[in-house]
Amino acid sequence: MKIELEQVKPMEIEEKSFEIITRELGDTPLVPGTELIVKRCIHTSADFDYAKNLCFSEDAVSRAIKALKDGACIVTDTQMAKAGINKRALERLGGEVYCFMSDEDVAAAAKEKGTTRAAASMDKAAALEKNLIFAIGNAPTALVRLYELIQEKKLSPKLIIGAPVGFVNVIPSKELIMETDIPYIVARGRKGGSNIAACICNALLYMIDNNRD
Amino acid sequence: MKIELEQVKPMEIEEKSFEIITRELGDTPLVPGTELIVKRCIHTSADFDYAKNLCFSEDAVSRAIKALKDGACIVTDTQMAKAGINKRALERLGGEVYCFMSDEDVAAAAKEKGTTRAAASMDKAAALEKNLIFAIGNAPTALVRLYELIQEKKLSPKLIIGAPVGFVNVIPSKELIMETDIPYIVARGRKGGSNIAACICNALLYMIDNNRD
Repeated sequence: MKIELEQVKPMEIEEKSFEIITRELGDTPLVPGTELIVKRCIHTSADFDYAKNLCFSEDAVSRAIKALKDGACIVTDTQMAKAGINKRALERLGGEVYCFMSDEDVAAAAKEKGTTRAAASMDKAAALEKNLIFAIGNAPTALVRLYELIQEKKLSPKLIIGAPVGFVNVIPSKELIMETDIPYIVARGRKGGSNIAACICNALLYMIDNNRD
Repeated sequence: MKIELEQVKPMEIEEKSFEIITRELGDTPLVPGTELIVKRCIHTSADFDYAKNLCFSEDAVSRAIKALKDGACIVTDTQMAKAGINKRALERLGGEVYCFMSDEDVAAAAKEKGTTRAAASMDKAAALEKNLIFAIGNAPTALVRLYELIQEKKLSPKLIIGAPVGFVNVIPSKELIMETDIPYIVARGRKGGSNIAACICNALLYMIDNNRD
């Protein structure tokens, strides 16, 4: 078999990828204003299911962009999602990324309460006096704890990105978030991941400032 | 709609997830000895395509496990993949993870040669005098450069995990690696990602030592 590589300059790879995605999406209906987020999720996964899975609350994108422009910070439930977010782009807007999953006080709190570190890390985030966007790509228990904190009026995030992946409590945890009045972007169903959570953050950041440095 | 969460203890979630994956795989044929890797990729993506996409060179798993037990180090092409690898498990075997993507000398070399930082970071890795496993979850250009270095007899990795994701040169870059005589685990086709590359590393590590601390 002859293996042929296309001659594409590094800077053109992403542009060409988005052209292919747009072509293959054809006339798949996308909610106006969400296209760049949906396409970036497909770009990061090569999985066109995200054209159907991604659910946006009303004005979620414009409200998230406003929050980021105002310096909102992002909280993740994995170091991997934190690593994937373009921190320079976020810092230019005055925000930063937090992940408390490896913190000793979080491990201790989780053990004491018999919960997960992901849930305990949401409590730690809720104690920050900041405008927050939650980017959850792994733990349904993080979403469930966010739901509880919202119900208890202890937290009012600017956006929840609900993209845990998996087989146990993943689907209902996302449905819970969609019942709140908090702006959300949710990957409905089983699919998602730290890569998808980070990618949605980056899509929002690049809608504000397309400088990738 | 009533949203029901299952009462599952944190430690049981993974076990239960693997039971669901095994049940849904049914009689899908998997290469003996690769089952835990395939199932972990499905666990990390909720995407059953990995039951068909993952290709293993002969004895790739046993050779990779031997290399890890002998203290092989892992090189990734993203900080995200590095973040996702269980570094404590790797360190217990004497290995560590490298990602040179953010290094200034790599950026300078890429600029000078008109190539990508991913390709330049493979050159930097080849200069290490270590037994290496490459876990590539993003850049086809990293795989192409690995292929060239192998052809030039400048590199002989213990394993290449070929799992870039995307639409431009992703498929042929993986096919190139499958033409070498280097042990490989390749996610054939468009799919893959930093999460998949890290997950394959972790699956191998957990086959040696299932302690997740």
